[in-house]
Amino acid sequence: MADNKKMVEEITSMDVDFAQWYTDIVKKAELIDYTSVKGCMVIKPAGYAIWENIQNELDRRFKETGVENVYLPMFIPESLLQKEKDHVEGFAPEVAWVTHGGLEPLQERLCVRPTSETLFCDLYSKDIHSHRDLPKLYNQWCSVVRWEKTTRPFLRSREFLWQEGHTAHATAEEAEERTILMLNTYASFLEDVLAIPVVKGRKTDKEKFAGAEATYTIEALMHDGKALQSGTSHNFGDGFAKAFGIQYTDKNNKLQYVHQTSWGMTTRLIGAIIMVHGDDSGLKLPPRIAPTQAVIIPIMPKKEGVLENAAKMEAALKAAGIRVKTDNSDKSPGFKFAEQEMRGIPVRIECGPKDMEKNQCVVVRRDTREKIIVCLDELAVKVPEILETMQKDMLETARAHRDAHTYTAHNYEELMDILENKPGFVKAMWCGDQACEDKIKEVASATSRCIPFEQEQISDVCPICGKPAKHMVYWGKAY
Amino acid sequence: MADNKKMVEEITSMDVDFAQWYTDIVKKAELIDYTSVKGCMVIKPAGYAIWENIQNELDRRFKETGVENVYLPMFIPESLLQKEKDHVEGFAPEVAWVTHGGLEPLQERLCVRPTSETLFCDLYSKDIHSHRDLPKLYNQWCSVVRWEKTTRPFLRSREFLWQEGHTAHATAEEAEERTILMLNTYASFLEDVLAIPVVKGRKTDKEKFAGAEATYTIEALMHDGKALQSGTSHNFGDGFAKAFGIQYTDKNNKLQYVHQTSWGMTTRLIGAIIMVHGDDSGLKLPPRIAPTQAVIIPIMPKKEGVLENAAKMEAALKAAGIRVKTDNSDKSPGFKFAEQEMRGIPVRIECGPKDMEKNQCVVVRRDTREKIIVCLDELAVKVPEILETMQKDMLETARAHRDAHTYTAHNYEELMDILENKPGFVKAMWCGDQACEDKIKEVASATSRCIPFEQEQISDVCPICGKPAKHMVYWGKAY
Repeated sequence: MADNKKMVEEITSMDVDFAQWYTDIVKKAELIDYTSVKGCMVIKPAGYAIWENIQNELDRRFKETGVENVYLPMFIPESLLQKEKDHVEGFAPEVAWVTHGGLEPLQERLCVRPTSETLFCDLYSKDIHSHRDLPKLYNQWCSVVRWEKTTRPFLRSREFLWQEGHTAHATAEEAEERTILMLNTYASFLEDVLAIPVVKGRKTDKEKFAGAEATYTIEALMHDGKALQSGTSHNFGDGFAKAFGIQYTDKNNKLQYVHQTSWGMTTRLIGAIIMVHGDDSGLKLPPRIAPTQAVIIPIMPKKEGVLENAAKMEAALKAAGIRVKTDNSDKSPGFKFAEQEMRGIPVRIECGPKDMEKNQCVVVRRDTREKIIVCLDELAVKVPEILETMQKDMLETARAHRDAHTYTAHNYEELMDILENKPGFVKAMWCGDQACEDKIKEVASATSRCIPFEQEQISDVCPICGKPAKHMVYWGKAY
Repeated sequence: MADNKKMVEEITSMDVDFAQWYTDIVKKAELIDYTSVKGCMVIKPAGYAIWENIQNELDRRFKETGVENVYLPMFIPESLLQKEKDHVEGFAPEVAWVTHGGLEPLQERLCVRPTSETLFCDLYSKDIHSHRDLPKLYNQWCSVVRWEKTTRPFLRSREFLWQEGHTAHATAEEAEERTILMLNTYASFLEDVLAIPVVKGRKTDKEKFAGAEATYTIEALMHDGKALQSGTSHNFGDGFAKAFGIQYTDKNNKLQYVHQTSWGMTTRLIGAIIMVHGDDSGLKLPPRIAPTQAVIIPIMPKKEGVLENAAKMEAALKAAGIRVKTDNSDKSPGFKFAEQEMRGIPVRIECGPKDMEKNQCVVVRRDTREKIIVCLDELAVKVPEILETMQKDMLETARAHRDAHTYTAHNYEELMDILENKPGFVKAMWCGDQACEDKIKEVASATSRCIPFEQEQISDVCPICGKPAKHMVYWGKAY
């Protein structure tokens, strides 16, 4: 048992140092590695397989709504980036610039895309002529670059993987509908697949995307009580269309500007999975996203029939559609158990000679560590059931944690007390002025996370300035 | 019929101007679009959907051989690129350089990866310690940049999409085995899925990859008789391992260098599909790779029952696993036929009131234009059969064209005559000296495509210099 104890002891406890616990997990579960390129990371097989599952499932959901995938260049000429004023102001300070191609200096420098609104607009301005060309519902999976000063694996890195959807519509209503549809697609993906409950709402003007008319967001609460913006959907109105001249002739033969949206999700979702579900033994992957859902660990594998039985179990589970592996290595069972827990594989299945005598095996859930005796004949029925139960339980556990760490502030003292002493979301009223947001940022390092769709009337005035309240806002400290 | 005639007339005939025909197809079939970024292109939905099918099918084949996907940074520090001498000499002249991050100049400039050997080596040098860590079988799907002077859609562009596999092994034998395994994976993918026959062989030293010990290639012949290098697999021996210090302790506790391979395939495969199968009416997609395999075109759709019948056919075909769409737009049938041909959809299914009276429909093959009367009750059985037949026929047609354009040169005059007057592959003997390759390049603008695995003894001497022959080589003009 020495090996597996060592493996576990090397993880810092989350209560001692959450940031170090996080870093330990991403390294020990072999999700990422640092590289010679400052601020950039290697996504290793265990991490990339999670991203592939996220991609497959999201991509399927996008396509069901009519979205088509495309690929646009990774470079944006400086003059193109500058076409929309707010947009360039938001992004220019954090882009990487290519100045030389081969041995020659470039005539115009190119930035490595931090996001591709300008390229999509350039394409749409050439491709859209008539109302028959609308809507355009494009998405691309790619990597983008933002020259961040401080970086953290998955959460903030100079290069990250994401998808960016960009749509163009005939009317403002259609654009707003698409913006909300994609926000809901993100929210249900997080809840159904990643077992992460979210708060849906609108960003304040201070926090919205550079160039957007409205930004909608899903906000999730991590185990340490910090918020993570987990996906955003923007309604651009016709601002980009006017800057780029994207016009179509409507049914009455009149020229009109299109209305646009964009929406994105990134590899930071993997950070969310770690920080919502993980514990001091390692990662905990929700079954629906886990690359390996079950690992079979033969006990006393040299005894007659044990490996054959493991192979039979594996075949039965595969036939039932379970992503299963058998660990036949010569490591000790204890080490294998610790490894399964570290890697967050939803269930392990132990079976040795004594179990075989009783025609049974032991299924151990990663989340509760519950041991469930399962008759071998029922394995292919019971394991999918256990995984489904676990998926639901993980969502409920995360929701209970989130709810237990969501507070209500009726006045300034309560708001300050909570922001200082109770990590979590704080619901409070807001007058709508950015000055109050700036003050909260200054005194408590917290930000408005969103104006939630589900509004409550906590008080009549803004607890910060005392002026009449316009909205209820979720406040919090965020990644 | 005016509309569809116009659509077709806008394609230049391939016999008049093959290059223009190619450009017309990629534009008219809406595979790509040019952009504001010189030498870079937009891959549009119809093109990207082909790439997604290529990815899915290749990725599945890779994973069956134990390959795992990862993602490495898009940037390479200049000092890292320089670690392997041949490699940097091969790539430095054609990379794009990032010199500024945000508002600051970088301390060390970064190139945008033209390929990722150096990054994989950097990772392996940290991750590989013991023989238990081997083999490493990693692959990544990403975009790479090479600052080409002249570009053509799919065939040569400054940025392109590809996969790059990078493996590390304990022994030279294992590395060689993996190199050949991946070459064979590529070859069977092209033949089985893309219906493109290939010649497998080894590159000469002049043509091999910068830093490789041996490069293997699959070479395909395009309709105009030019060759297209369609996939390469490299055995690096321990050259990179020595440059990067990638060592492991073997079972006897002795330090050893690993042996490495890399192998890649790119979006140029889409160019190969166009140039092997296309005709003057447009694209011809092999059924196994076609995003849409069948399009139902209702004839006289306003007549009672026609649209309902089309919907029933679509449902039956979908249930049979066919990727099918119905074109219910108000375009004329003739326009829809021309569009199906332009886009290369393998079969169209016509059905109007008269067909319905006879309980039948007409299935028209894109490749032969053969019209096949199919009883509606048998549709879900017959269409998959027709698609399978078509897949096989397209491979045989391409093979017949390739064979008819593969010539044998017994002496210098024959070699020159063929290279000048008969576009295609030329088989001829070779002494093994680069001087003879250089001469052929100079006088006939042709290159050695490969030393094929299937050798023939055409003559005893090299037709170029008269010295004893070592190998038979395929020569040709190439993209």
